[in-house]
Amino acid sequence: MSKVAVIMGSKSDLPVMQDAIDILKALNIDVYVDIVSAHRTPEKMFDFGMHAHTRGISVIIAGAGGAAHLPGMVASLSPLPVIGVPVKSSNSIDGWDSVLSILQMPGGVPVATVALNGAKNAGILAAQIIGASNQNVQDAIITYKEGLKTKVIESSKDLN
Amino acid sequence: MSKVAVIMGSKSDLPVMQDAIDILKALNIDVYVDIVSAHRTPEKMFDFGMHAHTRGISVIIAGAGGAAHLPGMVASLSPLPVIGVPVKSSNSIDGWDSVLSILQMPGGVPVATVALNGAKNAGILAAQIIGASNQNVQDAIITYKEGLKTKVIESSKDLN
Amino acid sequence: MSKVAVIMGSKSDLPVMQDAIDILKALNIDVYVDIVSAHRTPEKMFDFGMHAHTRGISVIIAGAGGAAHLPGMVASLSPLPVIGVPVKSSNSIDGWDSVLSILQMPGGVPVATVALNGAKNAGILAAQIIGASNQNVQDAIITYKEGLKTKVIESSKDLN
Amino acid sequence: MSKVAVIMGSKSDLPVMQDAIDILKALNIDVYVDIVSAHRTPEKMFDFGMHAHTRGISVIIAGAGGAAHLPGMVASLSPLPVIGVPVKSSNSIDGWDSVLSILQMPGGVPVATVALNGAKNAGILAAQIIGASNQNVQDAIITYKEGLKTKVIESSKDLN
Amino acid sequence: MSKVAVIMGSKSDLPVMQDAIDILKALNIDVYVDIVSAHRTPEKMFDFGMHAHTRGISVIIAGAGGAAHLPGMVASLSPLPVIGVPVKSSNSIDGWDSVLSILQMPGGVPVATVALNGAKNAGILAAQIIGASNQNVQDAIITYKEGLKTKVIESSKDLN
Amino acid sequence: MSKVAVIMGSKSDLPVMQDAIDILKALNIDVYVDIVSAHRTPEKMFDFGMHAHTRGISVIIAGAGGAAHLPGMVASLSPLPVIGVPVKSSNSIDGWDSVLSILQMPGGVPVATVALNGAKNAGILAAQIIGASNQNVQDAIITYKEGLKTKVIESSKDLN
Amino acid sequence: MSKVAVIMGSKSDLPVMQDAIDILKALNIDVYVDIVSAHRTPEKMFDFGMHAHTRGISVIIAGAGGAAHLPGMVASLSPLPVIGVPVKSSNSIDGWDSVLSILQMPGGVPVATVALNGAKNAGILAAQIIGASNQNVQDAIITYKEGLKTKVIESSKDLN
Amino acid sequence: MSKVAVIMGSKSDLPVMQDAIDILKALNIDVYVDIVSAHRTPEKMFDFGMHAHTRGISVIIAGAGGAAHLPGMVASLSPLPVIGVPVKSSNSIDGWDSVLSILQMPGGVPVATVALNGAKNAGILAAQIIGASNQNVQDAIITYKEGLKTKVIESSKDLN
Repeated sequence: MSKVAVIMGSKSDLPVMQDAIDILKALNIDVYVDIVSAHRTPEKMFDFGMHAHTRGISVIIAGAGGAAHLPGMVASLSPLPVIGVPVKSSNSIDGWDSVLSILQMPGGVPVATVALNGAKNAGILAAQIIGASNQNVQDAIITYKEGLKTKVIESSKDLN
Repeated sequence: MSKVAVIMGSKSDLPVMQDAIDILKALNIDVYVDIVSAHRTPEKMFDFGMHAHTRGISVIIAGAGGAAHLPGMVASLSPLPVIGVPVKSSNSIDGWDSVLSILQMPGGVPVATVALNGAKNAGILAAQIIGASNQNVQDAIITYKEGLKTKVIESSKDLN
Repeated sequence: MSKVAVIMGSKSDLPVMQDAIDILKALNIDVYVDIVSAHRTPEKMFDFGMHAHTRGISVIIAGAGGAAHLPGMVASLSPLPVIGVPVKSSNSIDGWDSVLSILQMPGGVPVATVALNGAKNAGILAAQIIGASNQNVQDAIITYKEGLKTKVIESSKDLN
Repeated sequence: MSKVAVIMGSKSDLPVMQDAIDILKALNIDVYVDIVSAHRTPEKMFDFGMHAHTRGISVIIAGAGGAAHLPGMVASLSPLPVIGVPVKSSNSIDGWDSVLSILQMPGGVPVATVALNGAKNAGILAAQIIGASNQNVQDAIITYKEGLKTKVIESSKDLN
Repeated sequence: MSKVAVIMGSKSDLPVMQDAIDILKALNIDVYVDIVSAHRTPEKMFDFGMHAHTRGISVIIAGAGGAAHLPGMVASLSPLPVIGVPVKSSNSIDGWDSVLSILQMPGGVPVATVALNGAKNAGILAAQIIGASNQNVQDAIITYKEGLKTKVIESSKDLN
Repeated sequence: MSKVAVIMGSKSDLPVMQDAIDILKALNIDVYVDIVSAHRTPEKMFDFGMHAHTRGISVIIAGAGGAAHLPGMVASLSPLPVIGVPVKSSNSIDGWDSVLSILQMPGGVPVATVALNGAKNAGILAAQIIGASNQNVQDAIITYKEGLKTKVIESSKDLN
Repeated sequence: MSKVAVIMGSKSDLPVMQDAIDILKALNIDVYVDIVSAHRTPEKMFDFGMHAHTRGISVIIAGAGGAAHLPGMVASLSPLPVIGVPVKSSNSIDGWDSVLSILQMPGGVPVATVALNGAKNAGILAAQIIGASNQNVQDAIITYKEGLKTKVIESSKDLN
Repeated sequence: MSKVAVIMGSKSDLPVMQDAIDILKALNIDVYVDIVSAHRTPEKMFDFGMHAHTRGISVIIAGAGGAAHLPGMVASLSPLPVIGVPVKSSNSIDGWDSVLSILQMPGGVPVATVALNGAKNAGILAAQIIGASNQNVQDAIITYKEGLKTKVIESSKDLN
């Protein structure tokens, strides 16, 4: 079955990126996790980007902070859809740096960017991508969304 | 075969969104185009979002400017992956409004956001999503990327 | 008599939105409170927006954070004046996302936006709207403003 | 019947503010227009703000650019609902100055802020405020919104 | 002798504004302190602005946060030089709102703006203004600046 | 009598800075004009800053764009009040660079900052500073402000 | 002798980057020019970055726009000093994207960032770096700076 | 051998700037440390900038916060390469002020700007500059970068 790779630029990004891993597992999707730094391990990134689509991976989720080049570079190397998670790192300028360096990719090399620290949504988006050709996964997403709805309805009881 | 819907909030967004349509056609992917305004035709948007996945559509591309609610609302209504294109409309505050109102979706409801006016990348991303489970489309993307490479190599001749 | 609806995208917005409820009650105006999420309960939002004006509601206050679509979508569905409260939620980019996605509505569908976390002012504005055709409520506002004045005058005593 | 005042800080704001006047006239609402500068005619502003509610005015629309103090100061002086239109003037810093100096009012003194240069929406909002207690005006708004819908539907024909 | 007025929109601004009072007293300049709210006590502000120059005041320092209208409105009412201190208040959008609503005054009505929370510099600037025509005060400023220099020189000892 | 120095970092700033010169001449105040670049003529700047107060100058107006260091450096060198004009130069990032590098001076060394390209207001502020100890100049300012008022009143005729 | 490489992500960056080439040639420094796209020719970039220091190059200048990854990726691959030039490309968000994605590099991998479109300064900085160990080049820089000074002095004649 | 000067505007910048000193010492490069304030000790800054290149210094690292003029002014005075470190000081507007007032230097006077609080990268960049003409230092940098790589590889073990 399809597998999703969740990679990040530094182990310090793991607390944020764990949300992607958790939701994918909850949706019964295989996950491969790795630390791949664009700036400190460029060869590893190169190898990962070049070969991911030949190693059973269908979607790549890449998280990084600051001048975040990992998602865009992997998107440059791979034909797979790449989802970018801007991480608000410690010396970030309020997160603007990671958002803009992931989002504003030039024509030809898209990165599917989610919200700042939005790793959970990256996981759901990866599932939706798999669900686009897999009815079971799409059904799991429909069920998941019903659950969101129910929680909101519950939370609104006894308000008036 | 999979079909991609390209919708936009106003016909004035068409010059920007045409790039998505063109690249999808160049990649031999079926496209459905429509004007669906979150704020002026909410019922049409509702109907579209609720039923797109039952009408042969695999991926939705939604473009909008200003307080751009169309991509997020369609993402709320559909289990399909939704790609959002922030359009820099005339009274936009430098595009920040459309970028942030598409990107910063709450947990549970992702929108795959591309660059400001990045409709071409939205089209490529949609193709990559289809290519994740369709070898022919993935091969077309690999060929497309080779073409990008060749153009850059050509452009650098005779520089020194 | 006129009633004001105070809705919000998530129960986590209630600590901010409570200020609107409190000031409306202090001004003797009926309040209806509900959790209505644009992204997780779109059908409920649709039903609320379509019918609020036929259920005795005169003004709607809607609070939401991040890519905040609730105020604008309700404004799209209802002929009533809608007041939007940008809530500074946890993963917000300093509040800019909620401010811009509420404020920058396209021509035809206004949202009366107040300051970031400005739920108290949303309540006062709703009262002013009712007071525009109700002398008692307008008098209550005049009295309230006199109170503000008195407090400032008091606070400036003994300064020199 | 209710009358709406449309005031602005400078005659150079008139091309923007005319949209408010036009839509109000189209909705058969009486309009009073004046130039009232917070910084150059403070006494006139004071007189206007103190007495507008005793001169048959129900809603005030105030437009200004740069460090835009007119909407907030009139809101401080009047018990009426005040709608603020941030105008993007020539030396504005991309409109941020007028947006923030109108929107971010302190607790107790709301301004109903609309989008940058959003005078048309200010006019519609004023009509909605009057319509909150006037069925004819509310019906006119419902009809107006139907017209918006029809235009979008028309514009989407012949696209595929 | 010349007197400097230090006014502020709310008593909650006093911890910031105290720096202006302290440095002025240290430079032996008379200070008048008051709470004057543009939005809650407009009449008091009007009276203060119209008459300050006839009551022995030479320079006005005005501090305010959020949509900060006090410095600009006092500048509109008085022929005296007005120094504006943007205060970073609790619901401020990172201070941008107070900075821009004080700084970006229209042609004809300047406010001498200092840094965010820069009340100390406002006090020094007021002293420099008085010192422009008063040799004793100018000499006190020269001495003060020598003191700054000495402290830096001291702090750099023993570094290598 | 008091003299105002108007200096700027480059002759290309003169079209903006001319407004300061013009209004000062209109108010019968002596003006000294010079090009003094912090980055290209640091010695000249040093000499100017150290000696201006001994050469009959009472107030310094300094305009510069981009990383604008001229106003702050002159303020560091001189005991006189220094007014800074942020100039929106060609490669400026929307003027934010010049605004922030002039405004955000550290404690001890104020610059009286005016609006982006606000040279006219710099001239008026310089006149107000002189007027703080010179009744004739203060009267000229009062007359000037009356003129502003009259123009607004004139412009509002025939509007209704 | 030392050689400076001037690379850029796209031939459309050449009009901006030409300033670096010109000033380096004027200072008699050898220049190597190439188009190297991080996203479209990642292998070429990899090869360039890995080997530049073994091919007689001492300093690398890299210009790119939008999500500008070229300077940072080359800095990751090379032990040489890398100067980054943020280019304001057509769909850039006012240049913020290129500035932040070049400037905000993580610890360990610096990029020497210059101003938006500041290719001329990149050239001068490269010369200064070479001049740090080459007296002739340092002397040429001293002479160049004297020339800047002379031009400013000339431009200030006949102003008063 | 070459020496690097690390200067900063205030002793309060030392905790940030210490990272530059530490990495330079770890790379066996001589360091000279001093407090030099552009605004409080302009003569000392002048003397330092004019003579650093004649006192055995090859590269200058200058850190400052707020309206940060030290790096640019030293760059104006010295023919040496100057690296600027924007320090996020206490009253900074999120660091934007120091970033922009260091980065946006005018043509002719570059500052090699690193990330907000990026003193460690400033130290590495200084070493790279020395390494451009010193094989031992370049080798030390290559070794340092290998160390970064190893740490990332280590950190990614046991993840799956």
